[in-house]
Amino acid sequence: MNRTYIADITPGARYSISGFVENLRNKRTMAFLVIRDITGKLQVTLEKEKYPALAAMVDQLTIHSVVTVEGEVVANEYVKMGGIEMLPDSMKIESIADALPIKDDSEIDSKLEFRWIDLRREQNQLMLKMQTLLTGSMREFLLNRNFVEIHTPKLIGAASESGSEVFEVKYFDTKAYLAQSPQFYKQMAMASGLDRIFETGPVFRAEKSYTNKHATEFTGFDLEFSYVTSVEEVMHMEEELLAYAFAKVAEKYGEDIKRLFGKEVIVPTVPFPRIKLRDLYAELEARYGYTVDDSAKGDLTTDAEHLCAKFSMEKYGSEFLFVTDYDAKERAFYHMRDEAGVPMGYDLIWRGCEITTGAVREHRYEVLKKQADEKGLADDVTFYLQFFRYGCPPHGGFGLGIDRLTMLFLGLSIKEAEFLFRGPNRLTP
Amino acid sequence: MNRTYIADITPGARYSISGFVENLRNKRTMAFLVIRDITGKLQVTLEKEKYPALAAMVDQLTIHSVVTVEGEVVANEYVKMGGIEMLPDSMKIESIADALPIKDDSEIDSKLEFRWIDLRREQNQLMLKMQTLLTGSMREFLLNRNFVEIHTPKLIGAASESGSEVFEVKYFDTKAYLAQSPQFYKQMAMASGLDRIFETGPVFRAEKSYTNKHATEFTGFDLEFSYVTSVEEVMHMEEELLAYAFAKVAEKYGEDIKRLFGKEVIVPTVPFPRIKLRDLYAELEARYGYTVDDSAKGDLTTDAEHLCAKFSMEKYGSEFLFVTDYDAKERAFYHMRDEAGVPMGYDLIWRGCEITTGAVREHRYEVLKKQADEKGLADDVTFYLQFFRYGCPPHGGFGLGIDRLTMLFLGLSIKEAEFLFRGPNRLTP
Repeated sequence: MNRTYIADITPGARYSISGFVENLRNKRTMAFLVIRDITGKLQVTLEKEKYPALAAMVDQLTIHSVVTVEGEVVANEYVKMGGIEMLPDSMKIESIADALPIKDDSEIDSKLEFRWIDLRREQNQLMLKMQTLLTGSMREFLLNRNFVEIHTPKLIGAASESGSEVFEVKYFDTKAYLAQSPQFYKQMAMASGLDRIFETGPVFRAEKSYTNKHATEFTGFDLEFSYVTSVEEVMHMEEELLAYAFAKVAEKYGEDIKRLFGKEVIVPTVPFPRIKLRDLYAELEARYGYTVDDSAKGDLTTDAEHLCAKFSMEKYGSEFLFVTDYDAKERAFYHMRDEAGVPMGYDLIWRGCEITTGAVREHRYEVLKKQADEKGLADDVTFYLQFFRYGCPPHGGFGLGIDRLTMLFLGLSIKEAEFLFRGPNRLTP
Repeated sequence: MNRTYIADITPGARYSISGFVENLRNKRTMAFLVIRDITGKLQVTLEKEKYPALAAMVDQLTIHSVVTVEGEVVANEYVKMGGIEMLPDSMKIESIADALPIKDDSEIDSKLEFRWIDLRREQNQLMLKMQTLLTGSMREFLLNRNFVEIHTPKLIGAASESGSEVFEVKYFDTKAYLAQSPQFYKQMAMASGLDRIFETGPVFRAEKSYTNKHATEFTGFDLEFSYVTSVEEVMHMEEELLAYAFAKVAEKYGEDIKRLFGKEVIVPTVPFPRIKLRDLYAELEARYGYTVDDSAKGDLTTDAEHLCAKFSMEKYGSEFLFVTDYDAKERAFYHMRDEAGVPMGYDLIWRGCEITTGAVREHRYEVLKKQADEKGLADDVTFYLQFFRYGCPPHGGFGLGIDRLTMLFLGLSIKEAEFLFRGPNRLTP
């Protein structure tokens, strides 16, 4: 008999289900099993005298063993779980579980060590289903707008864009590095005339960060598009993209997220509010007495970033806030600058956490080379500068971290929001 | 004025287009430009006397410079390119190209060195658009069947599954390796109860291969699903997946692929033919006099693999062929074996090239450990064996290389089929 997903079962017929034994009460005459699959849970109620062979199997079962069970599913108002139960007449043990080494309330490090057991929790299954829909919806949005998907190399020949830490790889008789972002190559795609591209892929960060929002490996969602003339166009693409994907998530998983994580999925209205960095500092001072030294006002401090959550909600009724007009010295050399020397870029803050840096890029070779020189990077980025010598459209783009979005959606730490976290002290399993 | 894609233009109205100067004839009174964007080409015909400012700009232009041009588009039966032309009255130079360092017929290594210029060719743009649709369609197929998308770590703590070569990474105070496939982690996802998963991501192969179908980095498309009991189910999932995606590609790009690559996109009929390895050898000998030593018949030789193209077409009228019943000693330790000790797995051959290995996996801890021991791998895979100790559904799956599929679709080498090829001697740009 073919397997049916538990969520697709209605009482009054025979079914075969497969899943993990989530709960097990093995009494003298009866046994009660709760079986869980990716779609839900079902109580299985066994009359032991009637099916002695099944009773003998149940005696072997442990929590999280895996079984396939067949039988009539009937309504029973006394069953808490949806008022239905299966009365099995056939069973197959697929896998017997040893005693579980972690519990729901174990410490995070134990949970990570046995991540595959931790991922069985309903919350984590929802997390990955939600992330699947989020990523799929973002791709869908872009595919509907003529974006091409690319896969850029993660093994690169030169240390990376910003002089920050990269992982070194033994590459045959030479050295390679792991790309800390697809930035250079998505710009290469613009020089290739691909017009609009996106990529989902791993990025690697060799910084020894031990915060709850940094990982040494995470999944980036990056895009870049040509013939952009203003930062406004880049921000507009991003807010439309997020509003689209958030609506999909809210529609399908909003209630489950509320139930299992206590978090509301709020579909943002477009446009998101925009504010210049120095105006933001003025607002934060006026409203909350938050002050920093003038010399620090060219970048967003971590405290100011957190305060954005409150400020943006109070002033604009929005969870999102675009912050523009950072100082050139705080931004990457490849951001285009306006006539006043201000980078044509932004950070997007959601719930008090930076989720994106976006910008119009400098595509003019001479200007770009000069800006790289200023940052002392010209030698490192020689190969990249070549992309702009043989014709290149003006362009802009941004990047998001899938894991960070997931984390903020559900109120988790980054360790909990990745399929399998990697950090300076965590390389297993 | 907003930009219009060239393919969306119909004569009789004003448009603004942006693109590369593909061709340029600058005569005394007239200039003829061919502008190309991601959707097509348009002739731009300038009356120089009428627009001296534009004529001065055209004097600066070089092949592959990038421009934005505005003007009336009119029908003109003398224009080869679709019988229409733009009569420009406004122009902006976005980027001036230096003299191009490669031509269409340059050697492959020069083309790779200047890959971004090479990617501008119409063939390569089609290649990446086709790959986008292929990958998107495969994801769509799986999303419609309850698959969850995961992103497994590429930095791993132990050398990998098969004892083959892996890249070593300096990871803070220790060593890491680059995953040569997501195999272990997609199986971890099965132990996590995720039921059905897929992943698109880079895989890294440290072998010094210099063939036209191996790369040190390429994009894998992997999937795994639970409660599989026979290899037939795995093969069926794959043939359905490919037939679906091929139909999408044929519909949208079949004609273009024929025109630009001279290749027919044949949408396969399901089921694909299946043959046991030893029966295949018997057929190859009877039909083509191909013989190998008996000791070599537990695996598919490269010559036999190539001959499959001819054989499968002749006998079954199919470009595809599933080959089953390899010898256990030739297959990975994690393939489940039937009662006779034969691995429940297959290779899929398309156009005489292996594109997949698929299998039912061994999910029983004791059996799996024994099979790893036999291959001398038990110490390397200790962390992986733990996945099977605490309950794990039976499962199976397979993996495809996006680049290899692309290569075979279009009749290219792997160097030409990647966005940016990586090989033992190629780490740039």
